[in-house]
Amino acid sequence: MKIAILGAGAMGSIYGGHLCLKNEVYLIDKKQELVEKIQKDGLKILENNEDVIYRPKALTSSENLGEVDLVIVFVKSIFSRDALRENSHIIGKNTYVMTLQNGAGHEDILSEFVPYERVIIGTTEDNGAILENGYVRRGGKGRTNIGMLVEDKRLILPKVKACFDECGFDTKIFENIQYLIWDKLFTNVSLSALTGVLQVPIGFIYKNEYAWNMTKELIRETLKVTKAMGLEFDEKDIINRVKETSINSPEGITSICADIKNGRKTEVDTISGAVVKMGEKLGVDVPLHKFVVNMVHALESKN
Amino acid sequence: MKIAILGAGAMGSIYGGHLCLKNEVYLIDKKQELVEKIQKDGLKILENNEDVIYRPKALTSSENLGEVDLVIVFVKSIFSRDALRENSHIIGKNTYVMTLQNGAGHEDILSEFVPYERVIIGTTEDNGAILENGYVRRGGKGRTNIGMLVEDKRLILPKVKACFDECGFDTKIFENIQYLIWDKLFTNVSLSALTGVLQVPIGFIYKNEYAWNMTKELIRETLKVTKAMGLEFDEKDIINRVKETSINSPEGITSICADIKNGRKTEVDTISGAVVKMGEKLGVDVPLHKFVVNMVHALESKN
Repeated sequence: MKIAILGAGAMGSIYGGHLCLKNEVYLIDKKQELVEKIQKDGLKILENNEDVIYRPKALTSSENLGEVDLVIVFVKSIFSRDALRENSHIIGKNTYVMTLQNGAGHEDILSEFVPYERVIIGTTEDNGAILENGYVRRGGKGRTNIGMLVEDKRLILPKVKACFDECGFDTKIFENIQYLIWDKLFTNVSLSALTGVLQVPIGFIYKNEYAWNMTKELIRETLKVTKAMGLEFDEKDIINRVKETSINSPEGITSICADIKNGRKTEVDTISGAVVKMGEKLGVDVPLHKFVVNMVHALESKN
Repeated sequence: MKIAILGAGAMGSIYGGHLCLKNEVYLIDKKQELVEKIQKDGLKILENNEDVIYRPKALTSSENLGEVDLVIVFVKSIFSRDALRENSHIIGKNTYVMTLQNGAGHEDILSEFVPYERVIIGTTEDNGAILENGYVRRGGKGRTNIGMLVEDKRLILPKVKACFDECGFDTKIFENIQYLIWDKLFTNVSLSALTGVLQVPIGFIYKNEYAWNMTKELIRETLKVTKAMGLEFDEKDIINRVKETSINSPEGITSICADIKNGRKTEVDTISGAVVKMGEKLGVDVPLHKFVVNMVHALESKN
């Protein structure tokens, strides 16, 4: 497959590096220094305690690339629309656009560029971190879950699965991918969002009774939305899972917390904001999530 | 009148200083150093650009005081119950207990010590600041508004008014004192509470569109409660007034903001918490105010 990956951050690099083993992969990133480093020395990935060099093609611009089979969006979600707009010439009539980004509701942006029949959404259980320019650590390795919001008439999902699995990923196709995306979202909209507004490590959330009250209220409000979406979740299970996350990572710092601290734009619009948008779409009132989105934006502009 | 004032902070000192001109006034405060300073040098108040020395009696304990005619509670609201409990022996069958503290709902605590027939609530438009030990600045001077929640059968309010006015205050008796208290509360539960959770100066609130969104939502939620209380307020008027407050005091720091910053307990329970309690009493759902109360408490324990 001819694959363009937008954004050569940690996740873009991990997918781009591995997929280029059996595919024609273009890593597109506007950071000139990073692109030149990958062009010159390849992309170094630390995995299983070993440095491995991969050779995806790296470009700052897709100008002369022509249409591709698959675009994978891995930029920070606030840049998704811009990235797709700038690279829209590589999206042809048969191009699929895929997102494995954190959060939910990314399909709203992707569908501005291709119809839903060519939008693939999903989650990844992989994680990684940038160590230095062109050098990435592959952390936990898990499943890549993919699906579509409409029927997969042209059977693209099995092709994507085969393509990914051949390159070492563990891909699973889900009929009801929204369930999985929202299942993952619960932790982000409660624990993660709150670590951001309170500027605390992950462990604080369960340890502090007031933060824990807030967490539970955010989960409950999200459950009203998922219920209206027709997705069934068990409140106790979710609350327990978030509790475990808080207990098991006492000193952990979420990206939303770090972004606010460092005066960067956060991804809150596709985290808590996804609950607000879905709530509006389905007529469910979500005052707390609106409040959290406004608060995160206020804190972003404060620093 | 024999008057005991609990708490010799800025407001307690201003009222205690002036009321002692024509009354037997006891300023009761646990800060030994402060009490000794007032006993020795008097209470110095900077007013109209001039230092004036007042001589209220200052005590760390009311042990041998006997019953008084009027107790005025001027401690920080989180200490009201403890202060009244420790001084309960000065409250006799004819003693009135009064609060002019910021926030609302103080009557709940006062009525644990005397029946509502002897509870006087109100607001003060005076303000002041502590300059040093035993030295207070009287800032803006305004009205002292008083009232009761039940019929003033024994006509105490006119007596209190006469007593206060004789000492230089401008006292007004209100039939519907809750209206006035809640009217003042709108600014505290929106603008002040938000300067606390966002840790920003007063001017930020109107200047930042996200903070301003949050402000308006908090006002709207409070309006649902006041409506259930039978109090009529105009949304536009209140929003405009809060807007003016934000514009006119760009660098101002609210006490809730300073308390959080300095790791002190705030008065949020009698500010946003008053909306929560009244909401619960009247069956009005106030998720945002619950969220704010929890958030302030979480931030208090963080620092």
